[in-house]
Amino acid sequence: MEPIGVIRTPYMEPVDIPIQGVFRKEVEGIVELKQEFIAGLRDLDGFSHAMLIYYFHRSGQVRLNGKPYLEDETHGVFAIRSPHRPNHIGLSIVKIERIEDNRIHFKEVDMLDGTPLLDIKPYVSHFDARENIRCGWLDKHFKSGKKPSKTILKE
Amino acid sequence: MEPIGVIRTPYMEPVDIPIQGVFRKEVEGIVELKQEFIAGLRDLDGFSHAMLIYYFHRSGQVRLNGKPYLEDETHGVFAIRSPHRPNHIGLSIVKIERIEDNRIHFKEVDMLDGTPLLDIKPYVSHFDARENIRCGWLDKHFKSGKKPSKTILKE
Repeated sequence: MEPIGVIRTPYMEPVDIPIQGVFRKEVEGIVELKQEFIAGLRDLDGFSHAMLIYYFHRSGQVRLNGKPYLEDETHGVFAIRSPHRPNHIGLSIVKIERIEDNRIHFKEVDMLDGTPLLDIKPYVSHFDARENIRCGWLDKHFKSGKKPSKTILKE
Repeated sequence: MEPIGVIRTPYMEPVDIPIQGVFRKEVEGIVELKQEFIAGLRDLDGFSHAMLIYYFHRSGQVRLNGKPYLEDETHGVFAIRSPHRPNHIGLSIVKIERIEDNRIHFKEVDMLDGTPLLDIKPYVSHFDARENIRCGWLDKHFKSGKKPSKTILKE
């Protein structure tokens, strides 16, 4: 696999990243797509959201168990969003602001500056917004509509 | 990147695959995870849904534009879910039925038998189920709650 572009964000270190982009709505990121792929962006501007699939380039390790922020217990790597996973694939759903040439301006940013981009998919509510969901260890952090102030997913 | 396992499904050819797994609820798939990664599954059973990230192993080509089923128009590859994309990464949200040793039994199946698995992430409604979504060219196929009977995403 080869990067199809790079993601530019204001976040230089993992500690800077909010719990998820949805919680710092003013922050903007930019996808800089390689020129050779520009034709692939056609009609993406009809979608309000996209999935960005990228490479956790700052993680050089695999940990099969991890303890997310705010947790006292460790969980299997496939039950958390840690970067220290086999294959180091990251995924974020972002809000498309506008697309200009090879640049996608987006909000709801939660990745590091310089992140290599692997794929872009349209977010399709008919398939991707599921209902009747149980979220295991995470649900207790969202009881009564509260939102944790620190990232609990990426570490 | 190396596969962390393989996905077993009843679908042997692309033409067999329904529009998305949600629409053929009785069909079951199985993730066969490599033994060395079993520890990473801990607590995944607390989640009702998971994201499976996999490799479109049957696509040997990249097409920057594609015409999904039911469409008369072509769209950029980043605005559709075609397998013929740079890096050939696929993503499906599936419903976890049960986990036994290295096997995840799941429903809402829409991938081919033998698909190499790259990652498993918990589906977290607090981040992944977005609201106020526009879905570009796809919305017209779902007007008045109708659901297309053939796949319109994967070709």
